[in-house]
Amino acid sequence: MLLIPLEFGTKEPLYEQIYLAVKEEIKTGALPFGAKLPSARRLAKHLGISRNTVDTAYGQLVSEGYVKAEPKRGFFVCQVEELADLKISLELPKEEVEPEPEEIPYDFSPSGVDMSQFPYHIWRKLMKDIMIDDHRELFQKGNFQGDLELRKAIMYYLRQSRGVHVTTSQIIVGAGMENLLFLLRQIFGGAKTVGIENPVYIHAHEMLKELGFEIRPITMDESGLSVKELETSGADLAYVTPAHQYPTGVVMPIGRRSQLIRWAEKEEGRYIIEDDYDSEFRYFGKPIPALQGISQSNKVIYMGTFSRAIAPAIRVSYMVLPQQLIRAYREVGKAFSCAVSRIDQRVLTLFLTEGHFERHLNRMRNIYKEKHDLLLSCLQEMGDGVKVSGQGAGVHVIAEFPVKDNQRFEICLRERGVVIYPLSRYYIERSPEREQYILGFTRMTKEDMIEGSGIIREVLCLIT
Amino acid sequence: MLLIPLEFGTKEPLYEQIYLAVKEEIKTGALPFGAKLPSARRLAKHLGISRNTVDTAYGQLVSEGYVKAEPKRGFFVCQVEELADLKISLELPKEEVEPEPEEIPYDFSPSGVDMSQFPYHIWRKLMKDIMIDDHRELFQKGNFQGDLELRKAIMYYLRQSRGVHVTTSQIIVGAGMENLLFLLRQIFGGAKTVGIENPVYIHAHEMLKELGFEIRPITMDESGLSVKELETSGADLAYVTPAHQYPTGVVMPIGRRSQLIRWAEKEEGRYIIEDDYDSEFRYFGKPIPALQGISQSNKVIYMGTFSRAIAPAIRVSYMVLPQQLIRAYREVGKAFSCAVSRIDQRVLTLFLTEGHFERHLNRMRNIYKEKHDLLLSCLQEMGDGVKVSGQGAGVHVIAEFPVKDNQRFEICLRERGVVIYPLSRYYIERSPEREQYILGFTRMTKEDMIEGSGIIREVLCLIT
Repeated sequence: MLLIPLEFGTKEPLYEQIYLAVKEEIKTGALPFGAKLPSARRLAKHLGISRNTVDTAYGQLVSEGYVKAEPKRGFFVCQVEELADLKISLELPKEEVEPEPEEIPYDFSPSGVDMSQFPYHIWRKLMKDIMIDDHRELFQKGNFQGDLELRKAIMYYLRQSRGVHVTTSQIIVGAGMENLLFLLRQIFGGAKTVGIENPVYIHAHEMLKELGFEIRPITMDESGLSVKELETSGADLAYVTPAHQYPTGVVMPIGRRSQLIRWAEKEEGRYIIEDDYDSEFRYFGKPIPALQGISQSNKVIYMGTFSRAIAPAIRVSYMVLPQQLIRAYREVGKAFSCAVSRIDQRVLTLFLTEGHFERHLNRMRNIYKEKHDLLLSCLQEMGDGVKVSGQGAGVHVIAEFPVKDNQRFEICLRERGVVIYPLSRYYIERSPEREQYILGFTRMTKEDMIEGSGIIREVLCLIT
Repeated sequence: MLLIPLEFGTKEPLYEQIYLAVKEEIKTGALPFGAKLPSARRLAKHLGISRNTVDTAYGQLVSEGYVKAEPKRGFFVCQVEELADLKISLELPKEEVEPEPEEIPYDFSPSGVDMSQFPYHIWRKLMKDIMIDDHRELFQKGNFQGDLELRKAIMYYLRQSRGVHVTTSQIIVGAGMENLLFLLRQIFGGAKTVGIENPVYIHAHEMLKELGFEIRPITMDESGLSVKELETSGADLAYVTPAHQYPTGVVMPIGRRSQLIRWAEKEEGRYIIEDDYDSEFRYFGKPIPALQGISQSNKVIYMGTFSRAIAPAIRVSYMVLPQQLIRAYREVGKAFSCAVSRIDQRVLTLFLTEGHFERHLNRMRNIYKEKHDLLLSCLQEMGDGVKVSGQGAGVHVIAEFPVKDNQRFEICLRERGVVIYPLSRYYIERSPEREQYILGFTRMTKEDMIEGSGIIREVLCLIT
């Protein structure tokens, strides 16, 4: 008979005590393969407990495969390969401490958003409104392409503000660029060769590489990506940022745009990926219309995001597919649910349709313009030696400083709490002889910008 | 001099009218390449408007690349390749109507959740609470692995309820299985060969295939995936659902579990993907502990989701990586932000830490157990010819009906509004001779279940 030390009146139910005790006997080999357990009736009597309790314990042992029930014969120990080896260590692994990112006092980073201007109260109100009405349907599975209402709102925005030719069936809502680029890869049935601007938006380069795309860096000239070089590169896709090239700030003129479209039209499988990442921010004149809008031939895959225009945590991006890719998308897309929560989709829909987005953009455009102008005047005060380019749009400008030793320049700035971003790091190959720097102006306060620029000026005096 | 018909007092600003008129002239070729535009001063005088207005219009034309400004010489038309060809058609493409899914009166689908039980008021309250306090930080970019607080909450849940050995640094939060499987693919630096259960969870199969994994279907026997067959399949990965195999309902006994782990230990690159998709629901005895917990050797990649236990739209899944894969993950993972919105992460964290999840699970377990028992008794009433298996856990059971012509059986049911799901469709290859059916019981009301079962009984009488 089994020796089972039962403790009555503890938190652990009796059936679990029996279950654990028998399991332990099997694991240690005390109950070998094939051994017969006492019948439930006998064990119950022996332990002075109810038959039901033993039945439950045996049932659990059977479920987990330690014991086999043979009709009319009883319960037998199953063969378990070297169970002793698999014993669970009760010691939990030590927690690794995750490194905290360092605080930089004067960070001219081009990424990030002026969050002091985030329309938190409106977002909160919309969210509360949604939560007050009964919207249980938002917790059901939604359309894999994104909810129709949101796609409608995006469609109107893109038509009116970006001149994009689009219907709701062409729009795919995703959680960030990576999500959409992944879908694109699936639509193409695998990775293709993609020509990308050199220098380039590093994050896009990383993602395309991670997704297995073959990368061909294409030289940027004063009009943008060199279509001549693209032609001979063997690329099927071209990844471009025509509205305000990242990082150089070049606006692709209409001539180059039409060249690029003609390149894509030459072969069936060729497409242009237009990343319209910061098109909302242009500080002089009208916005430059999207490349997608001038292509009759359905050769442009248009991408945009709300992360930059609203807040980094609003992980909603969208992609506009040419008509002829929609069928392929539907085939693969239905295997992947839309990764954006339906509540977020609903809030964003209201934010767009109730006019908050437009107002927010107008306000941000003014704020960023002030910061942009302030940064330009700060740079001007540094003297004629400082050459500025890429201004007038987006969230950063490019500056070249009259220094010989760039490394020393960066270290001196860094020691004083200032970080600016060398353009050379954005090159995939052939970085230029003269170093230039990216200075973002959106996230900084004006005070910090003035102080940070003051430090740059001081360092320039110090080392030149 | 240019002929520009200006309309005063309209909504369209004067500068835009000039800009559009000149652009049109260039596009049609009326202003050829190299042509000089009138100076801004002259044109302003000629049109009787301010110089500033013309400057703005010319500025826009320069930005978009239609016109080039040459210092001291004036404005010249740029070369634009066959612009006429690129004219935008003003007609918008017709909207494609997206098909609505058909309503099925008695749908025994195994997917979906009993949403009448969704703790909507609690979720709403948590959301409102978050919105009342100032949580601006939630709109900033979060940790790419998922917010630490949520990972902590998941860690406690997995340790206590599933016996999973885990620290927060091993947990990755993602928006659905596809998101996590994609990350896994990146961690392995490409797709590997994966042995999957046959029959299998179709959606997992589709996703793995879409992600480029090489698929090896492995026979299921009464203890689950055949490790013997896996051994000779050439697979590096094994995708399994040991707690309650989908769709057969088999619980993998401890003997097979240890065999599987030993298989993985034989070679360095081998891993087991344990999809613990419905482990929360077990209706007799204790839950079966996760396979991950008995593996000393860090060979199990554990996956779970909240979509099934809470609501389909809660697109939060998690993956527990073995220690030795974390470094590789950090390398690739940092290129991809966490796809779950931080507000959702925060709500879920509170839902877990404040005990709502446990209460919700207990309630759902009771409700599902009632439905499970009801379905079993409905099936029993159909007579001895109906054989049931896979019961006792999860969200569905398997039934074999005494019919010769399965197709006719399905059609007759369908005509009467009943849909049950043939198991053969879940086979990747070698579907079995005798058809069996999946009957899900979570989403249906009890009344529908009784009525639907009545119809099945009628049809059985009719065709046998």
